[in-house]
Amino acid sequence: MDKRKIEVCFTPALLPIYDISNAIVVVIDIFRATSSICYGIENGAAAIIPVATVEECKSYEIDGFLLAAERDGKVVEGFDFGNSPFAYAEDKVKDKTIVLTTTNGTYAIDESKKTAFQVIIGSFLNLDAICNYLKSQDKDVFLLCAGWKNKFNLEDTLFAGAVVHHLKNEDYYLDDSSISADDLYNIAKHDLEAYTAKTSHSERLKKLGIEEDIKFCLNVNIATTIPVLEGNKLVKLILN
Amino acid sequence: MDKRKIEVCFTPALLPIYDISNAIVVVIDIFRATSSICYGIENGAAAIIPVATVEECKSYEIDGFLLAAERDGKVVEGFDFGNSPFAYAEDKVKDKTIVLTTTNGTYAIDESKKTAFQVIIGSFLNLDAICNYLKSQDKDVFLLCAGWKNKFNLEDTLFAGAVVHHLKNEDYYLDDSSISADDLYNIAKHDLEAYTAKTSHSERLKKLGIEEDIKFCLNVNIATTIPVLEGNKLVKLILN
Repeated sequence: MDKRKIEVCFTPALLPIYDISNAIVVVIDIFRATSSICYGIENGAAAIIPVATVEECKSYEIDGFLLAAERDGKVVEGFDFGNSPFAYAEDKVKDKTIVLTTTNGTYAIDESKKTAFQVIIGSFLNLDAICNYLKSQDKDVFLLCAGWKNKFNLEDTLFAGAVVHHLKNEDYYLDDSSISADDLYNIAKHDLEAYTAKTSHSERLKKLGIEEDIKFCLNVNIATTIPVLEGNKLVKLILN
Repeated sequence: MDKRKIEVCFTPALLPIYDISNAIVVVIDIFRATSSICYGIENGAAAIIPVATVEECKSYEIDGFLLAAERDGKVVEGFDFGNSPFAYAEDKVKDKTIVLTTTNGTYAIDESKKTAFQVIIGSFLNLDAICNYLKSQDKDVFLLCAGWKNKFNLEDTLFAGAVVHHLKNEDYYLDDSSISADDLYNIAKHDLEAYTAKTSHSERLKKLGIEEDIKFCLNVNIATTIPVLEGNKLVKLILN
């Protein structure tokens, strides 16, 4: 194997300056889109279709499809649900197809699928599964933080750092943002909840009354599956 | 005073998503443009004119102007010098006007001057002077890292973190990137040289044989002046 590289991209706004054609892109939106997607696929959802706009989401109003739309942390009126992970429990999503649009997460998926070798979905819930998969592949790693409205956010960076932390002994080339994310994760890893509590985003989510969601999204390794983008659908990655 | 905010912008590519109209922008390009600018103004340069292109720099070829051009870490052929801080010593620059173009630094100055309340130049050389000035002003603080070709870099982030570290007890609102920069500075502050040695940029600069420049740029508080943009010129900020 040639030396692979790990890059961390702090916001989708910076995607155009990277070449991701040989990379597996891990899309990260910890609070809460990608945590919920991982939980939904883990719980047997047949597929999750990420779409960019609320209108597009509505256009999928076909019998049996669940429609999920979140904007600014709230469920959009008239939709089944938003991106609270608790809405993606087994009794709600098993064998269902969900169409989902969120403020930051689906935008990042949409942008990266244009040029990436492969797009998968990461969260603390499936951290080990993600890391083991990446190690096994002869590909660069591109950790794409969804951020908040194109700005850097800390919780997505921490997860990126967790991945770097688990991969770095495998002889990857690390860029400066990977080094930083790893160092921040090292500060935070013993108490992710306390560390993320000081972020602006966490403050905003608290005001929305979703502390339980936040706590849930910081559970590490309660899922073993990886959502992968096939065509326009996120489905369970089948490992050879 | 209303509560002021501190924001750290990791690359000029993200500038368009911020409102900096009420902010003092501190432009940061530690290796080496802003360190050299601070050193030059400290050493009595009459003015430093940052320009975007090598061609524009050449157009200032008038008797008595020093022309400085750097691309990819090297002095451009046919120019007096690039952005090594040692070229900005007193015997070389006192009372002179320097026209300067660099890979990352002058681009950041150029972009921010369009909308900022004020643009000043920061480096470890004048850290305390910068912090004391910002504290005394009823303005937001916007720490603009020049980065490397629009990507995040660690040494600029560390200096941003140093400023946050010195201001944060003054009741500013900190965004997530400020919190992160501060935490990274806390890891690095006891040995900036060792910490920055692990960055990609430092590796690149080492290959150029400019380790002495790098070491010099990590000197803390050897300058007491602040370069400020007035029109298209950087001059010494006069404090009231």
